[in-house]
Amino acid sequence: MPSPAALDATFQALADPTRRAILARLAQGEASVMELAEPFAMSQPGISKHLKVLEKAGLISRGRDAQRRPCKLEAGPLAEATGWLIEYRKFWETQFDRLDDLLDELKRLEAMTGKNN
Amino acid sequence: MPSPAALDATFQALADPTRRAILARLAQGEASVMELAEPFAMSQPGISKHLKVLEKAGLISRGRDAQRRPCKLEAGPLAEATGWLIEYRKFWETQFDRLDDLLDELKRLEAMTGKNN
Repeated sequence: MPSPAALDATFQALADPTRRAILARLAQGEASVMELAEPFAMSQPGISKHLKVLEKAGLISRGRDAQRRPCKLEAGPLAEATGWLIEYRKFWETQFDRLDDLLDELKRLEAMTGKNN
Repeated sequence: MPSPAALDATFQALADPTRRAILARLAQGEASVMELAEPFAMSQPGISKHLKVLEKAGLISRGRDAQRRPCKLEAGPLAEATGWLIEYRKFWETQFDRLDDLLDELKRLEAMTGKNN
């Protein structure tokens, strides 16, 4: 179980469209601050501020390369946050058809990881 | 797809341990502000402030009964937030054994909803 403070930091970090877009970009591979700043038409200091929030929440890590310090997505906090949310799935069942879409996705996931039995 | 502003509000609302505890309580059934305030050793105005954040994010709704105005958990935003997070599942696969636990839970879910095929 993650600590309450860790979940606070994760959800807080996710509560911003630029930070979510940065995570989506990093899901495609590591990137430097300069590479991240470009598509967002945002200054490097502006991006750096968001990266600090993401790093503090453990959602990204920074490489050792002194020049580039590439940013890398870290899955841990995302998995923990999903773990918290998934506890409420029984409410989707009663309130939502959307569950069908999720189940389709999860079946694909099972197929991908070869965990069908 | 939820709007970016809707996801912002949902994640922001979830970034607080008291608000998460309120949602967990409401997952067991509707409750009045007084009933919610009791276990948290928090004043009713204190709880009301948190409820306003949750209501604005669409995570709870309030009943019409003028006296009690019972609070009810709404699954929609939780499902949307989970939908966003689940896109990152491939990173759990490569970085985490924890996926096994999630898959076990999801298999139970499939069994419960009779969606095995």
